Amino acid sequence: MIVQALKWVGGVDGFLELIDQRKLPGEFVRLQCRDIEQLFEAIRTLAVRGAPAIGVSAAYGLALGMQKLSADDDLEAGLTCLANRCEYLASARPTGANLFWALDRVKSKAEDFVAGRPNANLQALREVVLGEANAICQEDVEMCRRIGENGERFIKDGAAVLTHCNAGALATAGQGTALSVMFEAHKKGKKFKVYVDETRPLLQGARLTAWELQQAGIDVVVICDNMAGWLMNPASRRGGMKQGQISVVITGADRIAANGDAANKIGTYSLSVLAREHGVPFYIAAPSSTFDLNIKSGAEIPIEQRGADEVKFFGDKRITPEGVGIWNPAFDVTEAQDIAAIITERGVIEKPTPEKVAEHLRREG
Amino acid sequence: MIVQALKWVGGVDGFLELIDQRKLPGEFVRLQCRDIEQLFEAIRTLAVRGAPAIGVSAAYGLALGMQKLSADDDLEAGLTCLANRCEYLASARPTGANLFWALDRVKSKAEDFVAGRPNANLQALREVVLGEANAICQEDVEMCRRIGENGERFIKDGAAVLTHCNAGALATAGQGTALSVMFEAHKKGKKFKVYVDETRPLLQGARLTAWELQQAGIDVVVICDNMAGWLMNPASRRGGMKQGQISVVITGADRIAANGDAANKIGTYSLSVLAREHGVPFYIAAPSSTFDLNIKSGAEIPIEQRGADEVKFFGDKRITPEGVGIWNPAFDVTEAQDIAAIITERGVIEKPTPEKVAEHLRREG
Repeated sequence: MIVQALKWVGGVDGFLELIDQRKLPGEFVRLQCRDIEQLFEAIRTLAVRGAPAIGVSAAYGLALGMQKLSADDDLEAGLTCLANRCEYLASARPTGANLFWALDRVKSKAEDFVAGRPNANLQALREVVLGEANAICQEDVEMCRRIGENGERFIKDGAAVLTHCNAGALATAGQGTALSVMFEAHKKGKKFKVYVDETRPLLQGARLTAWELQQAGIDVVVICDNMAGWLMNPASRRGGMKQGQISVVITGADRIAANGDAANKIGTYSLSVLAREHGVPFYIAAPSSTFDLNIKSGAEIPIEQRGADEVKFFGDKRITPEGVGIWNPAFDVTEAQDIAAIITERGVIEKPTPEKVAEHLRREG
Repeated sequence: MIVQALKWVGGVDGFLELIDQRKLPGEFVRLQCRDIEQLFEAIRTLAVRGAPAIGVSAAYGLALGMQKLSADDDLEAGLTCLANRCEYLASARPTGANLFWALDRVKSKAEDFVAGRPNANLQALREVVLGEANAICQEDVEMCRRIGENGERFIKDGAAVLTHCNAGALATAGQGTALSVMFEAHKKGKKFKVYVDETRPLLQGARLTAWELQQAGIDVVVICDNMAGWLMNPASRRGGMKQGQISVVITGADRIAANGDAANKIGTYSLSVLAREHGVPFYIAAPSSTFDLNIKSGAEIPIEQRGADEVKFFGDKRITPEGVGIWNPAFDVTEAQDIAAIITERGVIEKPTPEKVAEHLRREG
């Protein structure tokens, strides 16, 4: 079964149900967000994570936010409320392109509705807000599925796939991006094994990706990040360990430049170099919205440095001495020349170049 | 100050003082082993670790083991006691070439002494045992220092060094192997920075190497293992982050084949490939006793698979779902062609080949 990170239950008076990702993989808890404050906390504390999942959740958060209006309130009160709720939710995570985009989209839709039907009632406006959240959700589900369908041919029967971090259903409203490719290959009855980098420092691979794949009935093996290179080397097969050498690497991406350079979770760059050295094709699976044509190449992608405590502590336990330096970049940039193909919901860009990227993005979505 | 993993205090009735490595880096505790059972537990539970440090500790353990004999016991009782104690200590760690070697060496020395001086008293035999333990310890100290002296020229002023795992003073009776190179460069007044891979799963880099370097006054930055490749890429210097690109990688080795292929902590192989790709020279620093000429190439080196729990749990906390597979090789093999030089106490083997290795090992130690 492919897990579902989030689900709206009921009509305009309904609620949003999330898988509480803070508790995975130890506990599987469904969190019911019945007011906007609860949802805000869920986003802030990473109960829900992954850019698309956060965007969709926030859109539903606006539907929650409208529930407190009284039946006597008018459309103007409705729009004012919506604007306030947008501002509130946008502050839940400091950097969240999808978050801001989803909030803006619902707000615009509501404003257009009121402009076109100034005599409608508040109930109708609430239906519009929920309807737009549903639309965003449904588009995300479709987008994920198509990425999977476009990419599944890269996983051959008997393959050993390597992935990094979590580009799965837990990060989207649908079945993920990189993992969607695996889910579609699995649906077609192909047998393969997925090696998952644990993905230090936050261990999204060990905690989330391994769990998702296991839930879907896919054979999964967790490794420490520093084992990936050795696993690609045929020499690691010695001593009766019939470990499959890696046949293909598939990861997601956070931002892709106009030339195909792709920023993704720290560690992806090393994988891409190791894959090239071992003749293993390296694929990126991401929605076409991940491209930022204003950015010419990876050199222009800013790299967030995250707090030292992510590396220094494990839970409550300190693992480095006090006072030593820490380097903790959130992302790195994989070079287009090391990417065999970028898989989007529109199709596949093999050996990406600026021309192919531009051409791909001109296609119908 | 370079830390000292172990120190014998007093004469034949003395005791062995160890740094309790189980408590680092949170607590710095000196453990006084006043009988052989305490020392056995210290070895078994990794209070002392690193092949040379274990060997030297075990040799001193025999001196502790002789303390319980009464003054009335004769030489024969002494040798019997010694043989029993050897067997006992050898069982503290299942695979420990240095452990077995050190125990045998002390035992042989004692047997030779008794054969040559059958009328000596037990006190004299105890002096011989302690003397041989001291000799093994002193040789280790010398060996470490010479490795450092032979290798320090590879660290230039202003360099950024990368290392993996712990090949430091904590693993030896002296100032370590790979870290000895850094300590000697530091003594010469060179300014440089050391990046330390945290080294999953057991985090010897984060916990031990970072602490040792800090104690010695060397500038240290801990990174997650998956950051090493990006750190070697000049592109990681963006955005005002004046991170030094890595100028040199230096690690230890657990076993080196006749052709120069070197087994070391898992993750070393990936570093060697990433270093080659970024034009960064990769050095191994290890005693010449690490060579095993019976092993022609790395393909013949057996690779121990360690328990899954090392990866599944962090302290008490489970980080992977129950039931998923784990791959946890303890070591990997770096190919001789990717090693710029192997640094031993006898000198330096640049670009190792079978011929150069054989020639090197024929030299006076």
